[in-house]
Amino acid sequence: MAAKGILEKVGRRVRELREAKGWSQEELGFRSDLHRNYIGGIERGERNVALLNLEKLAKALGVHPRDLFP
Amino acid sequence: MAAKGILEKVGRRVRELREAKGWSQEELGFRSDLHRNYIGGIERGERNVALLNLEKLAKALGVHPRDLFP
Repeated sequence: MAAKGILEKVGRRVRELREAKGWSQEELGFRSDLHRNYIGGIERGERNVALLNLEKLAKALGVHPRDLFP
Repeated sequence: MAAKGILEKVGRRVRELREAKGWSQEELGFRSDLHRNYIGGIERGERNVALLNLEKLAKALGVHPRDLFP
């Protein structure tokens, strides 16, 4: 896995789960208490997301944190 | 899951995997290119570890990143 690989993989997974719910980035941001621009950066694989924010995303998306790792 | 819950859970998992290999914190630090004091902080649930370091830990421990989430 390349240095940036995990960021992109998790980002794609977040996008996939969000779109499966029919939510905008703004909606996921609201539900996870994260800014919509930060959600965008995560989905593009630009953000080195840490555990507490992974937990917020997983809770908002209704999955276990491990399910954010494809 | 309490605010700090995920940090403690991942920390305990890292310790469990490390001890299963019979490695000291220093040994895991060397293999993951992370400082042994940082490893100690992770295992005590004190560090909000981000994706790139989770990946380093998982690689060193020979598991998938998702396996760090019990």
